[in-house]
Amino acid sequence: MIQLDDLDRAILKLLKQDARLTISELAERLNRPESTIHFRIKKLIEKGVIDRYTIILGEPLKPKSVVAVYIETEIPVIEDFLEKYINHITKTLSMLPNVLAVAKSGRNGIMALIGGGETEEQIEKFVDDTIRTLPSLRRVEVFPFTSIVKGKDVIGFLVDV
Amino acid sequence: MIQLDDLDRAILKLLKQDARLTISELAERLNRPESTIHFRIKKLIEKGVIDRYTIILGEPLKPKSVVAVYIETEIPVIEDFLEKYINHITKTLSMLPNVLAVAKSGRNGIMALIGGGETEEQIEKFVDDTIRTLPSLRRVEVFPFTSIVKGKDVIGFLVDV
Repeated sequence: MIQLDDLDRAILKLLKQDARLTISELAERLNRPESTIHFRIKKLIEKGVIDRYTIILGEPLKPKSVVAVYIETEIPVIEDFLEKYINHITKTLSMLPNVLAVAKSGRNGIMALIGGGETEEQIEKFVDDTIRTLPSLRRVEVFPFTSIVKGKDVIGFLVDV
Repeated sequence: MIQLDDLDRAILKLLKQDARLTISELAERLNRPESTIHFRIKKLIEKGVIDRYTIILGEPLKPKSVVAVYIETEIPVIEDFLEKYINHITKTLSMLPNVLAVAKSGRNGIMALIGGGETEEQIEKFVDDTIRTLPSLRRVEVFPFTSIVKGKDVIGFLVDV
């Protein structure tokens, strides 16, 4: 396990809120010399604690509604086929711009986060046309997101441009 | 709807990959004058297309395993109670550092993304102790994430420090 002290954590917290903060702004806020802040950030990047810097996109680009969809395939007699079929579905879904995230779940499940236009009906139509038409599915369940309570920014993080 | 042209999109794509790129680096890569890039980024921020700059945390801080958990409560006779109870559960879950994200789903559902230590058993124990013990649940289903195919960085984005 990596050892982080209070100063490391304070720097990470501030950069998570606003990664444009300069070394001198961080130094002032945390009441430490600039050289210390500079050294710590360098180390945090070297150790891979900070993976990279990015932007979060705002309201104008965010889908108006979001659902999680769980997909479960049947388990074929020849199991070798299963992995290839799961890979095929995840790859196909991943290529679609309104599919924000895709994860494999267990041996024969897939969880996808899907964004849509103004209404949930549009996502429902997408699910009907794109997902429910896939062969050999045992289960498709849609979980519409009414509101995001923790991790609100995740949609602006995931959305494609 | 907001109008973005190819240059706006190219800038956003590059900043999503690396938000530390300077104006002059962006100008060089996109073969446009620095003044143009500067103006475009200013506009993108003003219009809220860029919400904010942040960091993604790397492997050392990421939970080793992640599950999505869907929770559904019973619907009480007095429905007024339902909203308060859902709010109570989402608030309680949101305060826990290993709970990466929480969304309300429909009237009586909650979807949570939960990270855990080395093994899935640790998350299972967390779900048993913290979630399955909640009263008036109709359903608790755990979807373990075997691998993330699209949106891999989402865990490093959501993880707390």
